[in-house]
Amino acid sequence: MFHHYFRSCCGTSPRYAYTFVSDCDSKSATGCHSRRHSRHTGGRQRSRSSGVRRPLRYLSYHLGLEEKQMRLRYIEFLDENGVRVFDLNALYCLAHAGSPVMILAKLRVETRCYHMPNACMHALKKHILNGSFDMRRGRLQSPTFAYETWGRLNRDRDNAVLLFTGLSPSAHAASSPDDPSTGWWEDVIGPGKPIDTNRFYVICVNSLGSCFGSTGPSSIDPITARPYRLTFPVLTVEDIANGGAHILDNLGIDTLFAVAGASMGGMTALAFALQFPGRYQGFVSISSAARSLPFSIALRSLQREMIRNDPAWLNGEYDVEHGPVSGMRLARKLGMISYRSAWEWEARFGRERATIDVQDEDNPFGIDFEVEAYLEAHANKFIGSFDPNCYLYLSRAMDLFDASDWGGSTGAAMQRITAERVLIIGVESDFLFPLQQQQELAVALRSCISDVDFQRLPSLQGHDSFLVDMDRFRPAIARFF
Amino acid sequence: MFHHYFRSCCGTSPRYAYTFVSDCDSKSATGCHSRRHSRHTGGRQRSRSSGVRRPLRYLSYHLGLEEKQMRLRYIEFLDENGVRVFDLNALYCLAHAGSPVMILAKLRVETRCYHMPNACMHALKKHILNGSFDMRRGRLQSPTFAYETWGRLNRDRDNAVLLFTGLSPSAHAASSPDDPSTGWWEDVIGPGKPIDTNRFYVICVNSLGSCFGSTGPSSIDPITARPYRLTFPVLTVEDIANGGAHILDNLGIDTLFAVAGASMGGMTALAFALQFPGRYQGFVSISSAARSLPFSIALRSLQREMIRNDPAWLNGEYDVEHGPVSGMRLARKLGMISYRSAWEWEARFGRERATIDVQDEDNPFGIDFEVEAYLEAHANKFIGSFDPNCYLYLSRAMDLFDASDWGGSTGAAMQRITAERVLIIGVESDFLFPLQQQQELAVALRSCISDVDFQRLPSLQGHDSFLVDMDRFRPAIARFF
Repeated sequence: MFHHYFRSCCGTSPRYAYTFVSDCDSKSATGCHSRRHSRHTGGRQRSRSSGVRRPLRYLSYHLGLEEKQMRLRYIEFLDENGVRVFDLNALYCLAHAGSPVMILAKLRVETRCYHMPNACMHALKKHILNGSFDMRRGRLQSPTFAYETWGRLNRDRDNAVLLFTGLSPSAHAASSPDDPSTGWWEDVIGPGKPIDTNRFYVICVNSLGSCFGSTGPSSIDPITARPYRLTFPVLTVEDIANGGAHILDNLGIDTLFAVAGASMGGMTALAFALQFPGRYQGFVSISSAARSLPFSIALRSLQREMIRNDPAWLNGEYDVEHGPVSGMRLARKLGMISYRSAWEWEARFGRERATIDVQDEDNPFGIDFEVEAYLEAHANKFIGSFDPNCYLYLSRAMDLFDASDWGGSTGAAMQRITAERVLIIGVESDFLFPLQQQQELAVALRSCISDVDFQRLPSLQGHDSFLVDMDRFRPAIARFF
Repeated sequence: MFHHYFRSCCGTSPRYAYTFVSDCDSKSATGCHSRRHSRHTGGRQRSRSSGVRRPLRYLSYHLGLEEKQMRLRYIEFLDENGVRVFDLNALYCLAHAGSPVMILAKLRVETRCYHMPNACMHALKKHILNGSFDMRRGRLQSPTFAYETWGRLNRDRDNAVLLFTGLSPSAHAASSPDDPSTGWWEDVIGPGKPIDTNRFYVICVNSLGSCFGSTGPSSIDPITARPYRLTFPVLTVEDIANGGAHILDNLGIDTLFAVAGASMGGMTALAFALQFPGRYQGFVSISSAARSLPFSIALRSLQREMIRNDPAWLNGEYDVEHGPVSGMRLARKLGMISYRSAWEWEARFGRERATIDVQDEDNPFGIDFEVEAYLEAHANKFIGSFDPNCYLYLSRAMDLFDASDWGGSTGAAMQRITAERVLIIGVESDFLFPLQQQQELAVALRSCISDVDFQRLPSLQGHDSFLVDMDRFRPAIARFF
């Protein structure tokens, strides 16, 4: 059984293209794997076999580009439900049981460009503010707030869910007729899914300061006609939340069914709830916190230093074609370390050695272990997909967030929250936003709100669990919505 | 009460100098603090007050150097027992109670030199092997194994304790008449201390591959008459342990009272125990592991990449005057993050802002929080004190260690251990060598040794607890010795 198809999420300035190479039956799946050796190729195109080259050929035709302009970045194996198969043993079992195994190859089009072309996102809507936008520590002239929506606003205009994102995702949380590419929370948002778009009108906001459509450090300052870069005002989570409120005003939505977010998005949802009492009925915070603690501040501060220390950063004045790639790679690797958990990695990699093809004999300190190859692949994926200055601003905004700014203490600030129902979800293996911080938030909210559901999930995948451990997260979220 | 004295641990090529500036009474202690503002100065000499300049003047006289060749790197406050006072409130309490508060100022002599001068360590002994030394993955010609000793070997030659170190310390574990400067385990080794040098003859080994006297990548290869640099063979923990055995042979010691170590030193002690059954009666492993897991491998791999990515690393061919300072700073900061714990830092720093004098207004992503200033100070302390290539080799040796190489599985390998008594200590807040790994080691050893004491300590300071939480560690260690 072989059928080939592909799809592209790229528009006029294509950057990444995904393609399903094939559904393989048991024999060919095993064959495919042995040819490619690894589920992550470390960014280099290792194999010249037709199986790997096929997506390049298809996409080069589709995108009107030369094959040499594209590089294979990543290969993933998926079971018949499209769920990633990480464990090689599990892959073999699937293959030998005759189940189809899909191979998702991610290709990178070699047009280096840090300013993300908005054309990439067909479903992206924009609200351009007429006039100036006051931030906590500065002001922007006519900023753009980008967002996507799913479902329909009902007649009473009371079924809207406002969703804020983590540091790096775009507003493309789920596929839609306008943009069928997979979103970052595809399993959660859609018809019949935990946030059911048959019932809810979901609005996902691209954070102010980001590089996926909303105004950020890589955008053009209308006053100088040059990119803001480091002249962008200090960004706070409150400013991002404020942008969400402007979108609601523009859509004519007074009161939300709920405001929600995970990670930095949870902080932003909380900042929205603190700033706009009365505008929401429910509040959902996932793997987030009422304030950043010194451990996570230290990690993010070090990530920022890695980027700033890269000579190519040029104090923020880098050329988009020659940005601080080395610093961004390091920062992403440290990110991955802090997003997952030691116990997941022990189960997943153990002391497995990297396959010979990703090792570099000329480099005595190169990749040796499978976990190093995994980090390498993730760093390669990230490079070019996020603007370094935007990363610095958003990262620091998380450090600066402290709900107690809104009342003197976390407890006092929570008195401002007007939600009737609250859902707090935390994960036991998360050490970036540890369970204690979720508990602290839940306890503070319970002092003033009677319906606070605190879900403590035993997911293994650390902070990233809300993106990957869907079997646990789907029911926890569905219960609320 | 003011008395000034100083001491220097520096010899012919001075690098660092410690000085006790003064014992302050309550008023002057408070005064000192308010003048200096911070217990870590972020590497810059902030104050021109005479209180801070005094140690510079003394040391410049003592070392025959200009004051401008030295920079103040660090100030610590110590109570009358010489224990560091971290908490400013505690410091004020001490001062107001009339207790003397000592100020330990660490100065850095501005002679950049990565190859540590052996003359620094007056007590350092050396065993130079006559002939070649076979490593697991290479061979060295006539290597040097440096060590220090405390106490006396008894007539039966059965009271020796062999101590291996973590990645970065030297063999100077404790002060001695030959070198009265404070050692890294001063609280544990000495007359009447947990490892009582009235009873035991303690030998601490500077690891092969390090830069404090033993042969390492920064040493001269006698065959080429040039530094080894990256021509140094791949280093393993087993090689380091083997060096310890050569020292014992040279000292005429057949059987140890115990072989011991913490962190990488615990791995080395285990590698010794696996390779030399019959040569020890006791085995002590503290905050260590039978193998490196992918989480700690990922952290160390990233630290190595930070150093290698520094353009000044020059593929290991850096000039000692212009080494990869930026990479080493990043690596040290990540080290500090992984050595401590989130809960210690929350208690210690919370969201405390750095004092104005360490903030840099020109740098929108500079130091903002106290925890950032703390990491900065630690990075500044580390720079120049450790050779980058040595760091790379030792770091990778830890990744490569897996006791199961000595029997197919950890359990099978433990059958080789001939100790009659075993002590395993682990710390609950350690996430680099987590408690589960200590437990795994203890369980494996209990299958073949009856007297295995497993101590689980609730210290807050993470992996570094064995260096700082002495009130818990002293009794745990004393019980064994």
